[in-house]
Amino acid sequence: MSIKFKNANVLNKDFEILKSKDLIVENNRIKTIRPTDASDDSNYDRVIDCNDNYLIPGIKNSHTHNAMVFLRSLSDDLPLHDWLKTYCFPNEAKLTDEDIYYFTTLGIMENLTSGVTGSMDMYKSNYTVAEASYKAGFRVNICDSITQFDKVIAPEEFYDKINNYKGDNGNIVKYTFGLHAEYTNNEEIMKMLSELTHKYKAEFYVHNSETKFEFDECKKRWDGLTPTQVFEKFGLYDFGGGGYHCVHIDDNDIEIFKKRNLTLVTCPGSNVKLASGIPRIKKFLDSGIKIAIGTDGPASNNAIDMFREMYLTTTLQKVTNNDPSALNPKEILKMVMVNGANCIGHKDADSLEEGKLADLVLIDVNKPNMQPRNSFINNLVYACGKQNVKLTMVDGKILYEDGKFFINEDENYIYKKCNELLHNLLNR
Amino acid sequence: MSIKFKNANVLNKDFEILKSKDLIVENNRIKTIRPTDASDDSNYDRVIDCNDNYLIPGIKNSHTHNAMVFLRSLSDDLPLHDWLKTYCFPNEAKLTDEDIYYFTTLGIMENLTSGVTGSMDMYKSNYTVAEASYKAGFRVNICDSITQFDKVIAPEEFYDKINNYKGDNGNIVKYTFGLHAEYTNNEEIMKMLSELTHKYKAEFYVHNSETKFEFDECKKRWDGLTPTQVFEKFGLYDFGGGGYHCVHIDDNDIEIFKKRNLTLVTCPGSNVKLASGIPRIKKFLDSGIKIAIGTDGPASNNAIDMFREMYLTTTLQKVTNNDPSALNPKEILKMVMVNGANCIGHKDADSLEEGKLADLVLIDVNKPNMQPRNSFINNLVYACGKQNVKLTMVDGKILYEDGKFFINEDENYIYKKCNELLHNLLNR
Repeated sequence: MSIKFKNANVLNKDFEILKSKDLIVENNRIKTIRPTDASDDSNYDRVIDCNDNYLIPGIKNSHTHNAMVFLRSLSDDLPLHDWLKTYCFPNEAKLTDEDIYYFTTLGIMENLTSGVTGSMDMYKSNYTVAEASYKAGFRVNICDSITQFDKVIAPEEFYDKINNYKGDNGNIVKYTFGLHAEYTNNEEIMKMLSELTHKYKAEFYVHNSETKFEFDECKKRWDGLTPTQVFEKFGLYDFGGGGYHCVHIDDNDIEIFKKRNLTLVTCPGSNVKLASGIPRIKKFLDSGIKIAIGTDGPASNNAIDMFREMYLTTTLQKVTNNDPSALNPKEILKMVMVNGANCIGHKDADSLEEGKLADLVLIDVNKPNMQPRNSFINNLVYACGKQNVKLTMVDGKILYEDGKFFINEDENYIYKKCNELLHNLLNR
Repeated sequence: MSIKFKNANVLNKDFEILKSKDLIVENNRIKTIRPTDASDDSNYDRVIDCNDNYLIPGIKNSHTHNAMVFLRSLSDDLPLHDWLKTYCFPNEAKLTDEDIYYFTTLGIMENLTSGVTGSMDMYKSNYTVAEASYKAGFRVNICDSITQFDKVIAPEEFYDKINNYKGDNGNIVKYTFGLHAEYTNNEEIMKMLSELTHKYKAEFYVHNSETKFEFDECKKRWDGLTPTQVFEKFGLYDFGGGGYHCVHIDDNDIEIFKKRNLTLVTCPGSNVKLASGIPRIKKFLDSGIKIAIGTDGPASNNAIDMFREMYLTTTLQKVTNNDPSALNPKEILKMVMVNGANCIGHKDADSLEEGKLADLVLIDVNKPNMQPRNSFINNLVYACGKQNVKLTMVDGKILYEDGKFFINEDENYIYKKCNELLHNLLNR
């Protein structure tokens, strides 16, 4: 399968615009990027005229719980622990694998509308999430979410089976060792997982210091150690990885992030809605630490919208640092493209270059919010939205175009099915 | 002209959903809302099947400078005063009336994509802004922006001519007395304007306490008086009105807002991007003060996106008050619908009821971000975006539908023209 995007402006790896290019995709890779030339149009299975619009690398959603779409707007505006105990946990306990499959698919569709071509998805039932992602053709890294309250399903099995699985559309599904959080795990589980990360020299990801309460309670339990310091103590960070949220973090934690070359995955939408706080992203950045961005689950956000997260990531740092120059668009794009691709373990999906994976998005600038044509990258971070996403391609396949989905399931069937499954779940 | 919206879920004035209704528009008013009945379809000029989607009152953008689209993403991430002096003021000084006409039209288009049916627009060249709005069919209140540095054009003339103008599509353009700000005006001008607000018993709006610098400098100039207290001293608030931004405000100012029944128009997107701060909206609300929401100009925001502003208004209060229950969706919707309609002086455009002005928006929930169908109003505030705006009607006329504009100008011509005008402006 070969697809030619013609008359495109291409965002390159240095976040500069290459004007009037053809970008040619063969199977799941970018074959070439060259000056526009209409003479060989007939050589391709499909030719897409970009009409002077912009091709950008796919955006990576580095922390999500896609299946949590079912809790979106079911209940909001409650104190965190009331909300978790009254709405989240009891309903999540009722989830079947069928529920998780369809809710994950709906979450993937929402990612696609936001120009997201890959995510790090942390939820229950790893094989089900892997299956839904694989069938939709969506790039994903399944981060495990082990807690001491569930029966722990051997993470080594996931690691072997998922990471070594080679489907006909390439290795689009990966697996990463992870714990749900410090407060949901005991010493025994942390030691067990540390043995595995050492055995495989593997990365480790975890919810880390999302709330002040979590941070303070951890220090009480562990003789003054913060969550980051607990994970470090058990050697979980010895081969890298990172933390989700990191809203409440001390300077020693920052040193551990530097030493272990960890990635901080910030989820600003969820953090402000749940009143968890605003992390010190600028301080991390200034310390040379890699930042990626995620939406968190749509239960707390309540949308999977990486444009909103990009805008929030920069503007919240500007206002909390009292500095309008904090976090410019290039820094933000690096977070969601380059750092995101590294974080989710699909490193070849980081930029639009010859030989790279064909994960890309066509941005339509012929809408009022992207006019007049001043800086494209400033518009992309400060003004762009889902209405500008004309096409999303993952691994060489167009999964979303002009508002329609080209995944394994019909979109209207997914809406109907998800509403039925939710109705049944709430009534059982 | 009669239009029947059938099979609609209608958001009523109490922010509850009336299911399966027909909403019938005759000329520029809502004639009736009744249970769905297909038997009289042939009686209308047009029948629109809403397919179980949602009709909501038009959103009001209570503070904007629409024409500032031309500065969008021209330069960002600079300290405020550098940005104003280097990019805003010199380029604004070069604007012609033709520039302002087309840039305002582009801004109006962007408002329409966001479900905005009316705005309070503060800029130069009041008649030009009025003309662009009138020709597009867009509801507007022109708030004057007098400064001591410009030749003051008699505001009484605007008041008389604009407010008493009755076009063939009703009185969709209004005018309000206003100053640019305290720091751009002297005593003489404030006295002159106060005489006029007293003569007409008219409201007064102004940029008020946007930055800490503005607030502190004002107190130095006026023996400790804040901007709010200066306006009060000159009687400018004697007949009501309000302030834009109000980020830095003291408790005595809050008392003045209560006493004069003023509206605080918050512009959270602009405030965070410029690092101006986060206003104490919850404190104002708890004091019984009316809040409305605006985008501010697209130079500092950089989008006209009221969904983003609604999300920011509530989430920024949650995080700064450390309270996830702060500002629920009904409170936010009241701000952009009821308070917005009052603020912009088109009070009959506040809700969907028989006899009210036909300013409405059709929200398409058959997109992933609005599924499954849990609370519609929670989705509207926390998850909805421009991609869900299927149709925007102002004063009984459909100005935007399925991504196309039905205003006086062709959309592609506007993009082309605005880019040409900008190019010429930057090069002269």
